[in-house]
Amino acid sequence: MVRPSLPRERIILGLDPGTNIMGYGIILAKGQSLKLLQFGVIQLSKLDSHELRLKKIFDRVLGLVDEFSPDEVALEAPFYGKNVQSMLKLGRAQGVAMSAALHRGIPIVEYAPKKVKQSVTGNGNASKEQVARMLMQILGFKELPKLLDASDALGVAVCHFYSKGKASTKTTSWESFVKENPGKLLSK
Amino acid sequence: MVRPSLPRERIILGLDPGTNIMGYGIILAKGQSLKLLQFGVIQLSKLDSHELRLKKIFDRVLGLVDEFSPDEVALEAPFYGKNVQSMLKLGRAQGVAMSAALHRGIPIVEYAPKKVKQSVTGNGNASKEQVARMLMQILGFKELPKLLDASDALGVAVCHFYSKGKASTKTTSWESFVKENPGKLLSK
Repeated sequence: MVRPSLPRERIILGLDPGTNIMGYGIILAKGQSLKLLQFGVIQLSKLDSHELRLKKIFDRVLGLVDEFSPDEVALEAPFYGKNVQSMLKLGRAQGVAMSAALHRGIPIVEYAPKKVKQSVTGNGNASKEQVARMLMQILGFKELPKLLDASDALGVAVCHFYSKGKASTKTTSWESFVKENPGKLLSK
Repeated sequence: MVRPSLPRERIILGLDPGTNIMGYGIILAKGQSLKLLQFGVIQLSKLDSHELRLKKIFDRVLGLVDEFSPDEVALEAPFYGKNVQSMLKLGRAQGVAMSAALHRGIPIVEYAPKKVKQSVTGNGNASKEQVARMLMQILGFKELPKLLDASDALGVAVCHFYSKGKASTKTTSWESFVKENPGKLLSK
């Protein structure tokens, strides 16, 4: 018998893709409690070619997906940038990171940076440091990460957890999601 | 004994990624002769969500890569667009298509649309129809494709073949390419 109201464990992988550094953060949600599993950054700036950076993003994200088997991927996705060139590069980095999740059939949910800050700190204009300090409290880790891209990624995972009430019917594959929620798909 | 000057067979996959339609074209190069293996389009406009489109691009490109085992992927990549929003979407589509090739260790070379037109027709401002008609002559197919995204993709594959003199040391994996050509990597 299926008991949909039972709290169950869920693993959320948060990603903050960039062209120089990509942050990632993985949390385990058990009912209403949250546990930090891992967070860090993927350094890309030392790789000279754009293609090598994209390959590294894909390989590392696929590695995280295969290691932690997240139920969902939450992506921090700015929808604007300073120019078309930088947006093309950001789009590629996002697309590559998304591919690794889509390849394993894991659904992706996107959040604007402001929404993440709002969700974690209550203030959509909070600084990266404020987001990181609040995450230290929520997840119980002691040291501020050196690179705040890591805490940003953790922030989007936590933001997704807090937003879950609205997405409680979300399933773990696109195929079943589409079948079960034909009206819920976003129009482009 | 290795005889690098011997003409050998190479398969080139050309891709023209877009957010509504993605064109692909596969050619077999044997010495200086070219043979059409397959070309067509991946229709995306019927899929409502952006993520479903990206997943379809990834799955289909990976399918083509696994079916035809191309030695190289040639990508038609515009470097500008009307606005940052459309560039972000285009970047994602490009990134996802590139992921499938990178995942299998196949090198990617990018060409601007003008370069493709120049290379195929001798005129950088040629129309899509002119490119398609020239490809019909070069590759010996009889009917103009209904969707010119398919011939555009074939065009970038042919463009890559014609550009090969400059890239004759190109190898078939990033790892060996990096090892053998440290000075040839593009700086970002």
